[in-house]
Amino acid sequence: MFEAVLSAETWKKCVTAIGSLVEEVPLKITAEGIELRAMDPSHVSMIDFKMKKEVFAEYKTDKEVTIGIDIEEMSKFINRSRSDDILVLKLDEEKNKILMILKGTSTRRFGCQLIDVTEQANLKMPSLNTTSKIRMSSQAFREGLKDANIVSDHVMLRADDAFYMNAEGDTGDIEVKLEKGDPDLYEIIVSAAASSTFNLSYLSDMSKSVPGELSIEIGNDMPVKLEFEIEGATIVFILAPRVER
Amino acid sequence: MFEAVLSAETWKKCVTAIGSLVEEVPLKITAEGIELRAMDPSHVSMIDFKMKKEVFAEYKTDKEVTIGIDIEEMSKFINRSRSDDILVLKLDEEKNKILMILKGTSTRRFGCQLIDVTEQANLKMPSLNTTSKIRMSSQAFREGLKDANIVSDHVMLRADDAFYMNAEGDTGDIEVKLEKGDPDLYEIIVSAAASSTFNLSYLSDMSKSVPGELSIEIGNDMPVKLEFEIEGATIVFILAPRVER
Amino acid sequence: MFEAVLSAETWKKCVTAIGSLVEEVPLKITAEGIELRAMDPSHVSMIDFKMKKEVFAEYKTDKEVTIGIDIEEMSKFINRSRSDDILVLKLDEEKNKILMILKGTSTRRFGCQLIDVTEQANLKMPSLNTTSKIRMSSQAFREGLKDANIVSDHVMLRADDAFYMNAEGDTGDIEVKLEKGDPDLYEIIVSAAASSTFNLSYLSDMSKSVPGELSIEIGNDMPVKLEFEIEGATIVFILAPRVER
Repeated sequence: MFEAVLSAETWKKCVTAIGSLVEEVPLKITAEGIELRAMDPSHVSMIDFKMKKEVFAEYKTDKEVTIGIDIEEMSKFINRSRSDDILVLKLDEEKNKILMILKGTSTRRFGCQLIDVTEQANLKMPSLNTTSKIRMSSQAFREGLKDANIVSDHVMLRADDAFYMNAEGDTGDIEVKLEKGDPDLYEIIVSAAASSTFNLSYLSDMSKSVPGELSIEIGNDMPVKLEFEIEGATIVFILAPRVER
Repeated sequence: MFEAVLSAETWKKCVTAIGSLVEEVPLKITAEGIELRAMDPSHVSMIDFKMKKEVFAEYKTDKEVTIGIDIEEMSKFINRSRSDDILVLKLDEEKNKILMILKGTSTRRFGCQLIDVTEQANLKMPSLNTTSKIRMSSQAFREGLKDANIVSDHVMLRADDAFYMNAEGDTGDIEVKLEKGDPDLYEIIVSAAASSTFNLSYLSDMSKSVPGELSIEIGNDMPVKLEFEIEGATIVFILAPRVER
Repeated sequence: MFEAVLSAETWKKCVTAIGSLVEEVPLKITAEGIELRAMDPSHVSMIDFKMKKEVFAEYKTDKEVTIGIDIEEMSKFINRSRSDDILVLKLDEEKNKILMILKGTSTRRFGCQLIDVTEQANLKMPSLNTTSKIRMSSQAFREGLKDANIVSDHVMLRADDAFYMNAEGDTGDIEVKLEKGDPDLYEIIVSAAASSTFNLSYLSDMSKSVPGELSIEIGNDMPVKLEFEIEGATIVFILAPRVER
């Protein structure tokens, strides 16, 4: 038995963020809340998602269970919710479905078929030796990625006296610089200068549904760690650096 | 001689609704007004359109005549009208054209070539033994069709204690329920429970340009009848049910 | 040494207008300002652009120099500016680049590779014997082109008692008429009736980024001259008439 109630809008934002990188995920339902950890199909990036039971309006479960979700299918339905819809999530173990019931001016029920995702269970979070941490506007980060995309398909994230996003291509080179005092840069802590290069499309996918504020941790030729909150849920994305050829 | 004046906006809405299903139609011009009846190219659905002369600002004709219109060509021009343009419709029998003159800040004249559509003349409206009638917001109907489209390419319309739209696919099943008291359901009259399944793309095309309110009549494995008004003109769409294989 | 400062928005509008027709252009930097003259790749149309140094907030140069610009590459970057960004243009002769520095909440620097465009130097403006001049809303001109495009891929521009845009195709014919007193027609001077036919896609490209007011000069089977201002810069487009086959 699992039944939980929350704002459809909150669930939509979380599903969108998760679905930006992964498609089939194991969702773990425990007495404390729900969580999932998964790698993207090419094993270059990882997502770690946690939503504590306190975020839900109601939350009831009688045992720990892990169910397989096709995020894309779930998105199709939740994307059709309206901003003030209430969402009821219910596990129907007999039919092997998770029910999503939207309550608004009409009642809409979607029985989403569960899938097999045993393979991905028990992924560990890597520990990273990052040396710089930046808190900034996620919007400004996305814009920087778009700037970089004009000349290249990868971007160097760099922290020193300021935070830099650099890209270089045949037709030109681009640098975006955010320094202390810029309204879009909330905090920059540099214990040692850091610089790593990443695939642009992964970074763009990861950051496209991030609301408000984004925390970025980088090191020298190290994976980047993006961390943010969506209305009480915490999401961490990790992306491996680009290997120079 | 035929000459008529009306709001370009009204004509645009009618042409859009008609053009959602049919392309080449016989337009009958009589002393009482204009009308057309046509089937879609695959003969699965029918449209019946009537606009009485009282709907026009001016209306003059000296004989009954049926002209062939390519709705798609007519749409291209009328879609370029602005909301406060006045439209003059004029038959130019010599040149075998219908003239559409838009009067706004400039004067724009489109001479639309008439075509041959003798084949379709004298279609009869089928009489249907529907057992349920629903009046509802056309917007809510369209949204229900979009929900159904997430899992399938057909939808079951069902009337009982409430009005239901059901769809089932490999990845899940969906139900949209509108019951008495829901603000989008204006009226539901059920003399006997009814349920029929329809092709989604036809239903979507039919309903996409319906303003405000829609009347739906259904029976058991019977055609559905959609009826609505566009600023004085009445439009009836009929769609055959999906044959189970 | 060349360094100039202006509103990013102004530069974006100019680059968009120029880029609507040509891709690789010689930009001449003189003590008086900057200018370019170029033909489109198929040599059917010509653009003449001039921006006096007074339009810039700052303008410094120590010699006359002509640099080759790939307008498309420049557009990609300047299109990503925000409305209140300040743009610094700087020539980096050593690296053979023109630097574009956007100053807003962050600092973004694009080093745009210069290219070779010696071929096009020293184009002369043709002298045209036009007999009619029309000043009108550029928006209304664009709308007329879209109307014409419904039935044809070319349009006849015609001046007489009024300004006409005519097009004819298999499915019908279209006429847009702007006469004295129409709010979109600011002035019409006809010394002799004029009529010439032009390719629609060229005319559409030319006029798509024209703000506010457009001046049009036509003759009989003569090139058309379109002239307009973008915040102090003057742009002239010339398009050869369509040759009848």
